[in-house]
Amino acid sequence: APLLCFEDYRGAAQERVAAEIWDFVDGGADTERTVTANRRAFARAEIRPRALVDTEVCDTRTAILGSTLGTPLAVAPTAYHRLVHPEGEVATAQGAGAADALYTVSIFASRTLEDIAASASGPLWLQLYWLRQREAMVTLIDRAAAAGYRALVLTVDIPRMGRRLRDMRNGFAVGPDCAAVNLDAALMASAHLRGAGKSALAVHTAQTIDPSVTWADLAWLRERSDLPLVLKGILTAEDARLAVSYGADAIIVSNHGGRQLDGAVPSLTALPEVVAAVAGACPVMVDGGVRSGGDAFAALALGAQAVFLGRPVLWGLAVGGAAGVAGLLDLATGELAHTMALAGRPGLDLIDRSAVRFEQYGERMEP
Amino acid sequence: APLLCFEDYRGAAQERVAAEIWDFVDGGADTERTVTANRRAFARAEIRPRALVDTEVCDTRTAILGSTLGTPLAVAPTAYHRLVHPEGEVATAQGAGAADALYTVSIFASRTLEDIAASASGPLWLQLYWLRQREAMVTLIDRAAAAGYRALVLTVDIPRMGRRLRDMRNGFAVGPDCAAVNLDAALMASAHLRGAGKSALAVHTAQTIDPSVTWADLAWLRERSDLPLVLKGILTAEDARLAVSYGADAIIVSNHGGRQLDGAVPSLTALPEVVAAVAGACPVMVDGGVRSGGDAFAALALGAQAVFLGRPVLWGLAVGGAAGVAGLLDLATGELAHTMALAGRPGLDLIDRSAVRFEQYGERMEP
Amino acid sequence: APLLCFEDYRGAAQERVAAEIWDFVDGGADTERTVTANRRAFARAEIRPRALVDTEVCDTRTAILGSTLGTPLAVAPTAYHRLVHPEGEVATAQGAGAADALYTVSIFASRTLEDIAASASGPLWLQLYWLRQREAMVTLIDRAAAAGYRALVLTVDIPRMGRRLRDMRNGFAVGPDCAAVNLDAALMASAHLRGAGKSALAVHTAQTIDPSVTWADLAWLRERSDLPLVLKGILTAEDARLAVSYGADAIIVSNHGGRQLDGAVPSLTALPEVVAAVAGACPVMVDGGVRSGGDAFAALALGAQAVFLGRPVLWGLAVGGAAGVAGLLDLATGELAHTMALAGRPGLDLIDRSAVRFEQYGERMEP
Amino acid sequence: APLLCFEDYRGAAQERVAAEIWDFVDGGADTERTVTANRRAFARAEIRPRALVDTEVCDTRTAILGSTLGTPLAVAPTAYHRLVHPEGEVATAQGAGAADALYTVSIFASRTLEDIAASASGPLWLQLYWLRQREAMVTLIDRAAAAGYRALVLTVDIPRMGRRLRDMRNGFAVGPDCAAVNLDAALMASAHLRGAGKSALAVHTAQTIDPSVTWADLAWLRERSDLPLVLKGILTAEDARLAVSYGADAIIVSNHGGRQLDGAVPSLTALPEVVAAVAGACPVMVDGGVRSGGDAFAALALGAQAVFLGRPVLWGLAVGGAAGVAGLLDLATGELAHTMALAGRPGLDLIDRSAVRFEQYGERMEP
Ligand SMILES: Cc1cc2nc3c(=O)[nH]c(=O)nc-3n(C[C@H](O)[C@H](O)[C@H](O)COP(=O)(O)O)c2cc1C
Ligand SMILES: Cc1cc2nc3c(=O)[nH]c(=O)nc-3n(C[C@H](O)[C@H](O)[C@H](O)COP(=O)(O)O)c2cc1C
Ligand SMILES: Cc1cc2nc3c(=O)[nH]c(=O)nc-3n(C[C@H](O)[C@H](O)[C@H](O)COP(=O)(O)O)c2cc1C
Ligand SMILES: Cc1cc2nc3c(=O)[nH]c(=O)nc-3n(C[C@H](O)[C@H](O)[C@H](O)COP(=O)(O)O)c2cc1C
Repeated sequence: APLLCFEDYRGAAQERVAAEIWDFVDGGADTERTVTANRRAFARAEIRPRALVDTEVCDTRTAILGSTLGTPLAVAPTAYHRLVHPEGEVATAQGAGAADALYTVSIFASRTLEDIAASASGPLWLQLYWLRQREAMVTLIDRAAAAGYRALVLTVDIPRMGRRLRDMRNGFAVGPDCAAVNLDAALMASAHLRGAGKSALAVHTAQTIDPSVTWADLAWLRERSDLPLVLKGILTAEDARLAVSYGADAIIVSNHGGRQLDGAVPSLTALPEVVAAVAGACPVMVDGGVRSGGDAFAALALGAQAVFLGRPVLWGLAVGGAAGVAGLLDLATGELAHTMALAGRPGLDLIDRSAVRFEQYGERMEP
Repeated sequence: APLLCFEDYRGAAQERVAAEIWDFVDGGADTERTVTANRRAFARAEIRPRALVDTEVCDTRTAILGSTLGTPLAVAPTAYHRLVHPEGEVATAQGAGAADALYTVSIFASRTLEDIAASASGPLWLQLYWLRQREAMVTLIDRAAAAGYRALVLTVDIPRMGRRLRDMRNGFAVGPDCAAVNLDAALMASAHLRGAGKSALAVHTAQTIDPSVTWADLAWLRERSDLPLVLKGILTAEDARLAVSYGADAIIVSNHGGRQLDGAVPSLTALPEVVAAVAGACPVMVDGGVRSGGDAFAALALGAQAVFLGRPVLWGLAVGGAAGVAGLLDLATGELAHTMALAGRPGLDLIDRSAVRFEQYGERMEP
Repeated sequence: APLLCFEDYRGAAQERVAAEIWDFVDGGADTERTVTANRRAFARAEIRPRALVDTEVCDTRTAILGSTLGTPLAVAPTAYHRLVHPEGEVATAQGAGAADALYTVSIFASRTLEDIAASASGPLWLQLYWLRQREAMVTLIDRAAAAGYRALVLTVDIPRMGRRLRDMRNGFAVGPDCAAVNLDAALMASAHLRGAGKSALAVHTAQTIDPSVTWADLAWLRERSDLPLVLKGILTAEDARLAVSYGADAIIVSNHGGRQLDGAVPSLTALPEVVAAVAGACPVMVDGGVRSGGDAFAALALGAQAVFLGRPVLWGLAVGGAAGVAGLLDLATGELAHTMALAGRPGLDLIDRSAVRFEQYGERMEP
Repeated sequence: APLLCFEDYRGAAQERVAAEIWDFVDGGADTERTVTANRRAFARAEIRPRALVDTEVCDTRTAILGSTLGTPLAVAPTAYHRLVHPEGEVATAQGAGAADALYTVSIFASRTLEDIAASASGPLWLQLYWLRQREAMVTLIDRAAAAGYRALVLTVDIPRMGRRLRDMRNGFAVGPDCAAVNLDAALMASAHLRGAGKSALAVHTAQTIDPSVTWADLAWLRERSDLPLVLKGILTAEDARLAVSYGADAIIVSNHGGRQLDGAVPSLTALPEVVAAVAGACPVMVDGGVRSGGDAFAALALGAQAVFLGRPVLWGLAVGGAAGVAGLLDLATGELAHTMALAGRPGLDLIDRSAVRFEQYGERMEP
């Protein structure tokens, strides 16, 4: 069957992946209401198309933190790609490169940073959690710089892991065929230990990630690397202002795809307040619930400079390895260009705030 | 079974038409959410009826761009009528004439402009897409004028064709029994070539329609014809103002029935801002999701001077040829007159803004 | 099974009544969206209860146009009660009397005005449609006055009959066992003639009711009777002001239970604008979608002085004749008293605007 | 199966409890729309999480009316615990103590106040209804003081019992194995008498509870006890102001879990107006529809100082006696601490109004 939309990839991926892996990928925290809310926010964004604009060429090229890209659609950091495809992150990097898209590698990648870099033809960023063992972070940062990674993305929404009930019911642990190979095996051991009624990943997170980090600690990270520092997981104007004042080079508005704080504001609806608070001081990006190039268009209209895809990239990877990832990303970029054409905004800079409004009559006016 | 409402025609038509033709007629772009939103907007319009008004006679007669008509309900341009009935547009013209309704013939009509004109007893307009081959447009314009067509309708929402997933899954192409006979067969060839996972119409559109046309180009069209020029597919106040300043003689607020930009604003909710922006400088009309004379009443109250029907006319045609078209249009006009009586507005000019409001309490107040 | 709520009566009635009679009672016009909207409006009214009020006695007694009553819940005029119970309106009158409730007899009652009056122990009003044959109206008015009816209710929302598709599909006509006995058999003949695809009642209405009546004609009616004149079917502030200026003695805000203009504003949401426009000049009452004493409480809080029940009374009648009507009305009044107790408003005059608000958070604030 | 969320407890409890007991516990008044609305209000509260806050320790300890507690989650008063577990309130007290949570004992407890106190390791409050027999109240008050209860909670939303249709259909009465042992058997007799189509509890309430009590009567209660007086069942700013002026020591915003006035405002949405009206003069607490620690977080953010659980505690009790109650309370407190961590508010005092907003875009902005 042809893969004509994200939903097609989702269906094909679910057929290929074991049930508990699917639950790990698909699930969210607690009642999963933020997962749902992320989607609903996009469902309410309506596009105001302009007519009689020359859209022969719709240019999706962009530059983010100095890297030029063929598309503002980017790969969000997701752990353990070998869970869904034997080649893991190496295939993801190849696919992202083929699609000319930015790829943010997870700290819990199941291939080495160096192997991933070797297979990549486009820019890579490295995502970090703040580990209790700071030396391990330093090692990673140094390896990333050496391997040509272009930015560090610190994910700040996980002082502890969200209560992902599906994983807890499954007693989920990472199997022996897949590991976070960029960290010491000892440090990762508990992620592989099954236990009834609990998620090994939650246990591991509690042991490993430092929940006491504060804004002041960012200076320590800054001193250890010249790479630009991106903060992922900001959802309020208050924190956006702090991010700017503490020198963040960019912000990713994110609720971790509804996998951390159940009930967190949908990322699309948090985007405007963050964009307004940042007031141009640094780029603002977003992820969470993007399921088409049209969704990406809405996020761009609300002020995002790039739009990350989490689960969908894993669907592509599960379906077809590197080709699947490239296929999904190309589909998304194609849909974006298509939306730009039909919306009469052939350049990313033309997708301004007037390009979307929120559902009217019986629901709600624009903010 | 009696045909008492639009839904009855829809059901009867679906029984008569092959599945992939039905999908072509019924479908929309991508997730089809604008198809749904068009309907939902009407569902929220509430009518404020006036009492003790003499409604013995409810007059639906009107005049648009100089043509007098028995009803403000009009036939929207839709391609390839022979897909649903062997007599195609000739039957549609007869039906529209019998119902004293305006008929806008599609550039992709499957009967000649001249045959259609010969069978018509009411006014005809000709709808155009801006073809890369401008000579073909000139030929059509000249033939239309010669055959007595009274206006040109330039559809501006299709720089490329919407991603109609149903057609793509069906590998839809126009069969050999039906063709856009008013254009060169060579120009139309690709519309008939089936290909797995794609719509031949999308391929054909990409080859044939010029996506680089801008407001400035309208002057070229103007010079080639004395007929009034209507722009179809305007959805914003910004473009409405441009349309007026570039001399459009009328505007049709439309999102192409949700078949082009998925996520586009519902046409009914775009209507007020267009009406306000135009400020009486030219007539404003609307289409998209109208499924009863009561829906038409709501659109008229928001400022439309005529209300077009797309799919419903094809249902009438499929069900009963000319008689089916007339039946559907008469039903709609009858429902409109009925609504006018029960709303205490026996003339079209009495259907003012105070005649509708939008759902209150728990949803939304009037704009 | 015990009859503990309106829904219990509805279920029991549906079991007892033939399908096409049920459709006649239950149905509405066209898509029946106003039927649904009437209910939804009540579903969104939230009660703000007051505590520590002496509610030992909750007094539902009231007076309307000079008649004292045990309850503000009243019987709305509905035609042809013998369709659901052999004793027809005589039983209804007995039931209403037993419940100490006002009963408005329909012009199309299937028992004589005099028989109804003879069986009534409480006040009766007579509802009229404006007939083309004015002499017939005069006769009715005179008979009503002679029989002790206390007010005339002119229903103004039916210049023609709503398109009740269920009746049309059933080819509904009033059977030979039931007739509008207060009018000439000749005048009523067409109401009994079945025809495929149409409602005999709609045909009859078109023949009999005068759609040309205007405010100025009210003077004619006024001259023929000293009884107070109530206008039923007002839904706007504009008409409310006209009603007052033309000397109406009271207003019933009503959309005829969604049986006339499909899409009409829900009566509960029209009530506040009518109450505000009338500004105390005459009593305002309401009907449409009231399905519990709690619903009645909400209507009273928005300014209604009485609340009419249409279909529910017919359910009571179908279920148990006079006892069923009394049972339904007593249930409703009991629920109202119960709501008054729990809301801390033991008198009707204490049910003020602060007693209800409309759903907040995620939907809509109070108007 | 592991008990990972409130819903797990609910399912497990329903399996263990007889159908008519389940209906008694689960049901609400009339249409149960306030039961639903309580939940919907929480579903619309969205959390605005703060990042880079030290959440190593999330402190849920609090103090209410002088009692120190491990959690702001408390046990709401619910009658007849032996209906769901043979040990009844003694087990509940043990469970609450184990979870370091406040327990408000119902006047209709099925174990003696003294036995409950003997098994409790944490603070107890005693809930009262205002009995027609005031001597019985005095006796209870004196016994409570002697047994070390720390506050009196007067429930003010039950001048009569809500029409709980499930109980009425079941002809529900309290069985012989369970009784309100703190009151005279004679006084309680009617609560045990089954009758078709009615709830024995409603009959009993009508006989026993005084619906004529007013604010002025509070002085009588005050004179009989030195314990702090809490008013439970306030839902408006008006009554909140009266409560303060009549010297209430605290308020519990509550609609009795939707079991009293059907249609009452959801308690979460009434909370802000009460908090604003009280303006710090006394603590404000809330109950109704809380089904997770995340829900409690939202209530705390809107100004509640404690959050009570009604039905969920009975689920815990049914599932596992004291251990089940402790399990449910610990789960809730754990979820609360978890939410505090992920929301970046590690102390209860840090959960301020900015921590929640209400659903935006297409529904409603914050109040
Ligand atoms: C299976 C999976 C693993 C993830 N692992 C990480 C991770 O290691 N680091 C991180 O910052 N975010 C991680 N995320 C969150 C994503 O980066 C992203 O925020 C989220 O998936 C976006 O929402 P979406 O899946 O709806 O596109 C993960 C998400 C998923 C689905
Ligand atoms: C089968 C089909 C073919 C159409 N072909 C054309 C066309 O050739 N030119 C055009 O301007 N619009 C075309 N439209 C759009 C209609 O003119 C109109 O905008 C739309 O159908 C209105 O929405 P409705 O179908 O909900 O009434 C077509 C629509 C349908 C359903
Ligand atoms: C079967 C039926 C017959 C009715 N007949 C009349 C009538 O003869 N005159 C009239 O003014 N209204 C008539 N009505 C409308 C009622 O008076 C009332 O406006 C409506 O039923 C109120 O809505 P409810 O049914 O939801 O309570 C009728 C309604 C029904 C259901
Ligand atoms: C089975 C049951 C018995 C109750 N008994 C009492 C009671 O005796 N006294 C009282 O003040 N409230 C009583 N309540 C109401 C609770 O105190 C509380 O207000 C309500 O349950 C909160 O809603 P929730 O169940 O959604 O948490 C009872 C509730 C239930 C479910």
